Amino acid sequence: MHHQDGTFKSALTERSGIPQPDNVNPAFLTSRLKKKTLTVDDYVNGILSGSRMILSRAITLVESSHPDHQTMAQAVIERCLPHSGKSIRLGITGVPGAGKSTFIEALGVMLVNKGHQLAVLAVDPSSERSKGSILGDKTRMEELSGMEDAFIRPSPSAGSLGGVARKTRETIILCEAAGFDITIVETVGVGQSETTVHGMVDFFLLIQLANTGDELQGIKRGIMEMADAIAINKADGDNIPKAKVARTQFSNALHLFPPTESGWVPVVETCSAYTKDGIENIWDVIQNYIKHVQSNGYFDHKRSEQSRKILSETIDEALLTHFYHNSEIKNRLKHTIDEVLKGQISPYVAANNMLKEYFS
Amino acid sequence: MHHQDGTFKSALTERSGIPQPDNVNPAFLTSRLKKKTLTVDDYVNGILSGSRMILSRAITLVESSHPDHQTMAQAVIERCLPHSGKSIRLGITGVPGAGKSTFIEALGVMLVNKGHQLAVLAVDPSSERSKGSILGDKTRMEELSGMEDAFIRPSPSAGSLGGVARKTRETIILCEAAGFDITIVETVGVGQSETTVHGMVDFFLLIQLANTGDELQGIKRGIMEMADAIAINKADGDNIPKAKVARTQFSNALHLFPPTESGWVPVVETCSAYTKDGIENIWDVIQNYIKHVQSNGYFDHKRSEQSRKILSETIDEALLTHFYHNSEIKNRLKHTIDEVLKGQISPYVAANNMLKEYFS
Repeated sequence: MHHQDGTFKSALTERSGIPQPDNVNPAFLTSRLKKKTLTVDDYVNGILSGSRMILSRAITLVESSHPDHQTMAQAVIERCLPHSGKSIRLGITGVPGAGKSTFIEALGVMLVNKGHQLAVLAVDPSSERSKGSILGDKTRMEELSGMEDAFIRPSPSAGSLGGVARKTRETIILCEAAGFDITIVETVGVGQSETTVHGMVDFFLLIQLANTGDELQGIKRGIMEMADAIAINKADGDNIPKAKVARTQFSNALHLFPPTESGWVPVVETCSAYTKDGIENIWDVIQNYIKHVQSNGYFDHKRSEQSRKILSETIDEALLTHFYHNSEIKNRLKHTIDEVLKGQISPYVAANNMLKEYFS
Repeated sequence: MHHQDGTFKSALTERSGIPQPDNVNPAFLTSRLKKKTLTVDDYVNGILSGSRMILSRAITLVESSHPDHQTMAQAVIERCLPHSGKSIRLGITGVPGAGKSTFIEALGVMLVNKGHQLAVLAVDPSSERSKGSILGDKTRMEELSGMEDAFIRPSPSAGSLGGVARKTRETIILCEAAGFDITIVETVGVGQSETTVHGMVDFFLLIQLANTGDELQGIKRGIMEMADAIAINKADGDNIPKAKVARTQFSNALHLFPPTESGWVPVVETCSAYTKDGIENIWDVIQNYIKHVQSNGYFDHKRSEQSRKILSETIDEALLTHFYHNSEIKNRLKHTIDEVLKGQISPYVAANNMLKEYFS
């Protein structure tokens, strides 16, 4: 973890101007600074100087539900905002067992070796993952997590999908301000979270397996149509012929879909995160996509639409929460749903009655 | 139009108890009753007795935005509600040119000849159709519109999608109370309306053409995954081989999709609304589907979910409208979106600021 200490030290020296004695024991310094309460300036300067440790602490602040932490987090985010937006944001999804972690490990190591700085985040609100999962994720991505230019952060463990989405979006801002030029957001393609992730990334990759029977049981309808590319993973050894057949099948299927808004024709490729075959090729696909959408203006258009959507979604969610969490409304709603399901009242009339009560 | 008069007369005689002289000139009676202001009782009794004319007038009432008409319409709907729910509701979509009207004409005539009573409604909020379109629709479905047991009603001409959806749902209730046992809701698969129609029917059919290239340009992504069946239309003459190829292609593609919630495997069939080949077969598919979902409980489950969804969608829409139509909010929102798009403020913070203002 020397990289973190080193960067942190330079952050303090160069940005916040606090003189650092050269002969301080690094372990002691780390432990002292870890406990120190940081100011907004400390956070911002640390992040902008690329300190992994301060970035980590800032993300913890973002994830905290404590009002003081939230106020501070918002101040940090506001100041990081002008330095954000410069990474390529990749969403990666697939059912458990498709090999997402191994794939991200293989792609990530390759990207870091090419000189990129990579942040890996996760959105998985369904899981009951505790803090221990940081270790879990890092263990699953052993080589990547040991690399200086990679930063792996698991899904915030608690909260609604909306809350987790917000925290992840804010984490992307912090990571970008810290200098990461590629962000991967991983999610499990079984719930609502992949739609959310699709709404915060530039490119959306679906990891599939060749034997499409059982695996598809888990995946949600609609995900295939969101994918900018499908990677048929585990195309190694005896599995190669099957993977090639699957590639043709998916490719044919995608051609029956109407064209995407981006004008991009979704691509299906085989790869093996285990042998690394095809990983480079997937990266080429991603780069081609980015070139395509940057040249036709869709890249900026989509980012703007995403910001606009966060604004309206945040407003909408708050308005609905205010209604549905009203205790009188709550009590009445149960009864009303009963009446509607029994056909005693039309849902429109029932809705209007409740709204009258709410607004009076 | 003698059927309408006859039924109307019996409605008045049998239900509302108003004695009708037998020697009245039917044309005179029609014209007099057409002008008469009906009471809620008149409407309800007329509908329940199966009067097409009163049904038509009740739908006009539902479509009216006049507050008095709306109050009366709601009273009529409430009383029809216990008599509704008994038809099979079919949604039919496809891009312009796929041959929806000819298909509905062919299917409809067959159904009526089998002894069914069929109502054909449309949801097409994008169109600027005037009242003249009643004639338009009836002309396009010439044979069907001349049948006593068929009732064709075009899309309400004005209003938002939400408004049109509501009117169509309420029209379904009235049609079912009037004794129709099959309802077809037609929509054009290019906007949002097909999702809306999917939310009000039991079975969703997509009409496609064999030459999938150009036609797909118009169709919206996501529609294919909503379809319980795809009919490859215009499979006649030289077109048959192409239609068969398309059938195989779509069939293979659908098998790559995850299973549907209903447990039904979507079916692809060829047909020709022109030669009538395959139309009977599509009806078999629909019947098989209905049997399947009635036996596994999905039919009732989906209907309940639809009612529940109308309730919450109506509430949600009203809450959002109340916010976004607030004149102060309106002014501020423009400015806020600008700031967000320029990266001057995070969309979350911007949203919270606006919410604070609204709730204070």
